Amino acid sequence: MTKKKAQIRTTKEDFVNYSSKLRKEFTRLTISPGDRISFVDEKKSIEGHILEQNELGDPNAILIKMDNGYNIGIQFSLTATIRKMTGRVELESFPIRIPQQKSGLPEISLLATGGTIASRIDYQTGGVVMAMQPEEIFASLPELFDEVSFKSVKSLFSMGSEDMNFRQWRIIAEESFNELNSGVQGVVITHGTDIMGYSAAALSFMLQDLISPIIITGAQRSSDRGSYDGAINLISATRAAAKADIASVMICMHETSSDDTCLLTLGTKVRKMHTSRRDAFRPINDRALARIDMAGKITELQENLPRRNEGNMNLQTGYNDKVTLIKIFPGISPDVLDWYIDKGTPGVIIEGTGLGHVPTFTPSKENRSWIPSFERAIDEGIFVGMTSQCLYGRVHPFVYKALRTSYQVGVTFLQDMLPETALIKLGWTLGNYNDPEEIRRLMVNNLAGEINSLSKFAEFLI
Amino acid sequence: MTKKKAQIRTTKEDFVNYSSKLRKEFTRLTISPGDRISFVDEKKSIEGHILEQNELGDPNAILIKMDNGYNIGIQFSLTATIRKMTGRVELESFPIRIPQQKSGLPEISLLATGGTIASRIDYQTGGVVMAMQPEEIFASLPELFDEVSFKSVKSLFSMGSEDMNFRQWRIIAEESFNELNSGVQGVVITHGTDIMGYSAAALSFMLQDLISPIIITGAQRSSDRGSYDGAINLISATRAAAKADIASVMICMHETSSDDTCLLTLGTKVRKMHTSRRDAFRPINDRALARIDMAGKITELQENLPRRNEGNMNLQTGYNDKVTLIKIFPGISPDVLDWYIDKGTPGVIIEGTGLGHVPTFTPSKENRSWIPSFERAIDEGIFVGMTSQCLYGRVHPFVYKALRTSYQVGVTFLQDMLPETALIKLGWTLGNYNDPEEIRRLMVNNLAGEINSLSKFAEFLI
Repeated sequence: MTKKKAQIRTTKEDFVNYSSKLRKEFTRLTISPGDRISFVDEKKSIEGHILEQNELGDPNAILIKMDNGYNIGIQFSLTATIRKMTGRVELESFPIRIPQQKSGLPEISLLATGGTIASRIDYQTGGVVMAMQPEEIFASLPELFDEVSFKSVKSLFSMGSEDMNFRQWRIIAEESFNELNSGVQGVVITHGTDIMGYSAAALSFMLQDLISPIIITGAQRSSDRGSYDGAINLISATRAAAKADIASVMICMHETSSDDTCLLTLGTKVRKMHTSRRDAFRPINDRALARIDMAGKITELQENLPRRNEGNMNLQTGYNDKVTLIKIFPGISPDVLDWYIDKGTPGVIIEGTGLGHVPTFTPSKENRSWIPSFERAIDEGIFVGMTSQCLYGRVHPFVYKALRTSYQVGVTFLQDMLPETALIKLGWTLGNYNDPEEIRRLMVNNLAGEINSLSKFAEFLI
Repeated sequence: MTKKKAQIRTTKEDFVNYSSKLRKEFTRLTISPGDRISFVDEKKSIEGHILEQNELGDPNAILIKMDNGYNIGIQFSLTATIRKMTGRVELESFPIRIPQQKSGLPEISLLATGGTIASRIDYQTGGVVMAMQPEEIFASLPELFDEVSFKSVKSLFSMGSEDMNFRQWRIIAEESFNELNSGVQGVVITHGTDIMGYSAAALSFMLQDLISPIIITGAQRSSDRGSYDGAINLISATRAAAKADIASVMICMHETSSDDTCLLTLGTKVRKMHTSRRDAFRPINDRALARIDMAGKITELQENLPRRNEGNMNLQTGYNDKVTLIKIFPGISPDVLDWYIDKGTPGVIIEGTGLGHVPTFTPSKENRSWIPSFERAIDEGIFVGMTSQCLYGRVHPFVYKALRTSYQVGVTFLQDMLPETALIKLGWTLGNYNDPEEIRRLMVNNLAGEINSLSKFAEFLI
């Protein structure tokens, strides 16, 4: 046994998420992460490179990357034989299969930005890291190249979406604008899921008068997991970009937790509603625009969709990132709004309770009403928009006296707009316009499907 | 025409939400709000007191309160005849029918706090105000008094719930504690819907080791509307308080938008998910505990429910209201957390993205990572808890490197707890305990159903 092996054995970083029984076995066999092993028991024989177990994984299952690129978790038992074999993969690279492009196929462009769809397990930590390039994402999808031709595949960033903001949105919007103007049928954007809804809203406002679809997709599960959803989402997004006759910014993700269909949801009316389910992206106060099945068949679910056209798109990437969002809770002090006013924020979205409430009544001296702070904000020219933390439904300033009080001091009630979409719309509006009346007019009028007329699509929990 | 009538005619406050055609007709007939009128057209003949039209109402429909207490909106046409009659109701009072209490029925207590269930139209403004006393709520429910006997009916407050906070929760908790200890079968609390979920969570923590059910109910529609849901919710809540063998704090509201069933949902796992639908209250990361139908039949939907018992309840009403909640959005500056730290907040709940992310990477100098502010908060002894704005699902600190970074500096990941419940639990924990280790231990352990073990009830959008 070499000294190096001994070091590996005693490093706490290795195999931390495996059971002590398995760790002992790996130690005995001098196996470290990335080593090629064979596993044989009465039922199966498997060969591949051993991975760190994910913290969420079964500590008694051995995670192996097989030569076909898929990972498998195998339950260990005392009747199983594990053997160390020759051959070891370098921890950060896998073979990339770059497909041949055929002629005569519809052309689309792909912009990769990172996210789980471009992630895999980091052998060192057992965690998931953003590492894959677009070509790697495609490696397991050769069939796609019989259907579409990629005019352009660009890796713009390699980020988890939680770190993105308007700077990335601008770049994605400009790149999408240029690609669509170059004549492709559509653009696919691979993206982390955390803030995918916010990004979809941002692109919906930055790119006005679209001529072709822009489809954002990603994965809720990383490519090393059996439940990886990125492949089907990407195939469906690519087909939708090539074929759907809907000129909107849309998100394409699983419709249900099975692999039957994906939904195309409008960028301003969609929200990540679950931390981990594959069908986490749901339309709110809206129906999905269309469904796409595994054969690529697109079924439209709404009428009067905006169609592909030969018009001129508008690119408006101004954004004022000093806007903020405040979620109301019982007893919340308006101090936080005062502080944002002092700090020079140009606009605030309030996520009120119910139909758009904030504390306004003062049952005791310890609690302050929000109304004076609203008045102060509005006097100083700050836009204050009201949305609801219910998410579903619409705010309304006339039902209760307390709501009317907010309305009367100048708070703008933003109908059935999602709080997140309202924040992005406000940043975009303030980044592109100066006149307060124009800004208020833009905020209450529908620009990109973010406001639906009364209860037109009042579907709940779909 | 007297001078007084002329004044009424020219007062802008009257009939502002009616069409000019109707306003002219009312002026011609010297009708003012509260007057008794008859309305006759080819189809119907109706008599009652004319009301101001709600701002949401049809300006061409005349709103009449009939003698049975219900309001009706009648479309006005030129073939209709309106006549002013003698008799006028005082604007703020309606007859109250106080029922006889029978003996031998299960005893419950009712605590009224205000809200839409205790509201009606304000004739002066057309808006909805909190005005009704508990006896008034009961006036339309005489059948209830064949089933239960009210040991105590108290009007604690007459507030819209958006103005409530821990001071009201303390009073409700103490009153509930005393009522249950007095031997009633259960307590019903009528409550506004805006923050009903927060209040249910607060009572769940303030009242430990319950011996009988505490049922919170309310209405999404006011009593002057045909879609009023308060009656059925209150009947169902009362029956559940008398009969359900579940010793928990629960919310009882409509299961669907029809009047068939109500759900009993656990106080720590329920959220108002729609601004106006009657079935707005949904269990999140949980199933409802039970369903109650219009015949009062209770069907349990979970196993191992806490049962009525003869134990000793614990009342712990400490609450530290300096806790706060911050909802994360792309590019949000940690300045707001720094400000809360400077202000002396003892605890913060972060509503992160996805599995519990905040901006941690710094793609440009304009954006700061949240990690140093987390470190500073934790160094100063401030509890920082992580939840997800997805609402459904659970946060997890190990899947991505960025999550692990937050975890490593001491952020506590709060599993599948709702952000709102986490905020209330933190306020309660800090209000009753001092030792930081004890506080952290309490926050990550299940006290009142607020944390479910992995995916046990992983139901989505139900």
